Amino acid sequence: MAITFTVEKTAPDSRARLGKLLTPHGLIETPVFMPVGTQATVKTMTRHELEEAGASIILSNTYHLYLRPGSDLIGEAGGLHKFMNWPNPILTDSGGFQVFSLSKIRKITEEGVEFRSHLDGAKHFISPEKAMDIQMELGADIIMAFDECPPYPAEYEYVKQSKDLTCRWAQRCLDYHKRSDQALFGIVQGGMYKDLRKASAKELGDLNFPGYGIGGLSVGEPKDIMYEVLDDLIPEMPSHKPRYLMGVGSPDCLIEGVMRGVDMFDCVLPTRIARHGTVMTRSGNFTIRNKPFARDFLPIEEGCTCYTCQNYSRAYIRHLIKAKEVLGMRLTSIHNIAFLLRLMEDVRQAIREDRLVEFRNHFFSQYAG
Amino acid sequence: MAITFTVEKTAPDSRARLGKLLTPHGLIETPVFMPVGTQATVKTMTRHELEEAGASIILSNTYHLYLRPGSDLIGEAGGLHKFMNWPNPILTDSGGFQVFSLSKIRKITEEGVEFRSHLDGAKHFISPEKAMDIQMELGADIIMAFDECPPYPAEYEYVKQSKDLTCRWAQRCLDYHKRSDQALFGIVQGGMYKDLRKASAKELGDLNFPGYGIGGLSVGEPKDIMYEVLDDLIPEMPSHKPRYLMGVGSPDCLIEGVMRGVDMFDCVLPTRIARHGTVMTRSGNFTIRNKPFARDFLPIEEGCTCYTCQNYSRAYIRHLIKAKEVLGMRLTSIHNIAFLLRLMEDVRQAIREDRLVEFRNHFFSQYAG
Repeated sequence: MAITFTVEKTAPDSRARLGKLLTPHGLIETPVFMPVGTQATVKTMTRHELEEAGASIILSNTYHLYLRPGSDLIGEAGGLHKFMNWPNPILTDSGGFQVFSLSKIRKITEEGVEFRSHLDGAKHFISPEKAMDIQMELGADIIMAFDECPPYPAEYEYVKQSKDLTCRWAQRCLDYHKRSDQALFGIVQGGMYKDLRKASAKELGDLNFPGYGIGGLSVGEPKDIMYEVLDDLIPEMPSHKPRYLMGVGSPDCLIEGVMRGVDMFDCVLPTRIARHGTVMTRSGNFTIRNKPFARDFLPIEEGCTCYTCQNYSRAYIRHLIKAKEVLGMRLTSIHNIAFLLRLMEDVRQAIREDRLVEFRNHFFSQYAG
Repeated sequence: MAITFTVEKTAPDSRARLGKLLTPHGLIETPVFMPVGTQATVKTMTRHELEEAGASIILSNTYHLYLRPGSDLIGEAGGLHKFMNWPNPILTDSGGFQVFSLSKIRKITEEGVEFRSHLDGAKHFISPEKAMDIQMELGADIIMAFDECPPYPAEYEYVKQSKDLTCRWAQRCLDYHKRSDQALFGIVQGGMYKDLRKASAKELGDLNFPGYGIGGLSVGEPKDIMYEVLDDLIPEMPSHKPRYLMGVGSPDCLIEGVMRGVDMFDCVLPTRIARHGTVMTRSGNFTIRNKPFARDFLPIEEGCTCYTCQNYSRAYIRHLIKAKEVLGMRLTSIHNIAFLLRLMEDVRQAIREDRLVEFRNHFFSQYAG
């Protein structure tokens, strides 16, 4: 087995759990947030900055790396860990989501998906087998089955057929995947339809993947609907396998996801909003570009131990962002990543000490969103 | 005295010299290269990266900081050192050069210069007294007199009048400047006219500034002409005061400048070319964007001890630059700054060991430019 997942503790009053996920490149404590390094770089950050901020695993995008610089080149470099100098665990997604959200002119058949690159318009074809080939070349610790992610909202019949296709593709990925040092996760789909979600969980559960993604959420639906889907779905998923809620990363959704039994999360949110000058704090996000911060010489968040807050003021960071200086978005990115990773550390500590509900209530009493 | 400058050694076979420049924020070994932090940030780099690369003093631009975020705001922050979290020496230029090179609609009178901001077109007026006020608010260790920098080429009569104006402005700066913890340098002008340069050196020398900038070089003239001006000019400058050749930073010009008796240099070159993917090495610059580096897994320069070369390959950096990832320009900037600062360290060591001419000859035998 490429990975070992141990549930160390389950909360008494929620589905939250504390786990250890051992991978070929190191140990991950769960629940975990995975910063996203789309193009083999968590935007603006070095390996050492990520480690200092507390990152134990990062995610990278198969679709982007396949198109540029090419997975063959990364294979030649000795794999993604060596290429990007990140010796810790990596998860790669399957490329499915990006094919549907970024590329143009898609033709979906039983065989796979034909699409045009968002970079140069060149035609490409990705099948489940091709997605495995690419991810085997990249060499991440955890890789994802190739799936179709339906939009929101979508008709029941469409979502049902899509879920069935994703399930057949999952079987093909499993049959084709060969690297024993990689764990291949299946992806549960089914849109917002509870019966389809349950069916997907059952069908993929039978295929005995070492872990499961929950795809097709956080695609535009209200948060309450996402929470309801999780409430119904998670009891149907294998209890001893890691559950990864894909593309979710706001503080409130992380806490609510953990409460419902999610072990892993990823999202571009913290780094994306950082580049536009929005920073995350316990009392909510604020936009440091705004005028009130021009002469505010406090750190982004008092008491924060991140590099940014230890060294730079709001007024300085605002100046950098206004002046379009790269250091500005570096500093906001470092803070936001450190903020989310510390939040997850606090969440784990709360589970450990049987006070997650209390932690959650306290968090939401301060948090403005 | 705000600064103390000690010439520790003079080379036996050139005008090169080794010095120690003590400022309120620390000691600088000369000859020194000063990285440029135009908008209160050496582009893309943190304080700690600069220190690790070996920077002992940085330069920041009065013109830019006056317009944004405003020198009053920086004064309120406790000065530029505190605002940008750089506790080491800083030099600010006078804004003169930028008023002439960046702003629009300039009207030069005896009183000062009226210009329009390159940011929003707003009208501003800077006089020698105003340049002192701004620089006193910024609080750098070394500040520069307000000067007029004539273009190249320029007529003798124009350059003569400009030099005379710069000299009268220098006197006004000296009369007006009040901070005893700042050293105010005069700026020698005179274009490419040897007699004007000599006259400027003499007139400013008589004003007994604690140090001198050499302005109006590296403005488009051939390098040989710059070297000739330095050959003639430097013997006319006070021997016990630091000599600062403004805006010069290519490796060959640094070495040739040191040979002619220059103690200080600054230039945006290393960071500017870095952002476009050009890196500096002992054998010359190369553009890492280029195809041959796509699968080149060596560091930028073998044996280089900088963070970039210790951690990342040419192929990875090329990928980042091509993909417009910020980390790419960060890594090339770190390397170029570290390269130039190490070059200056080697130059100082060569002077110390009486082998600068040998060092220079060896350097040029490898360097392609």
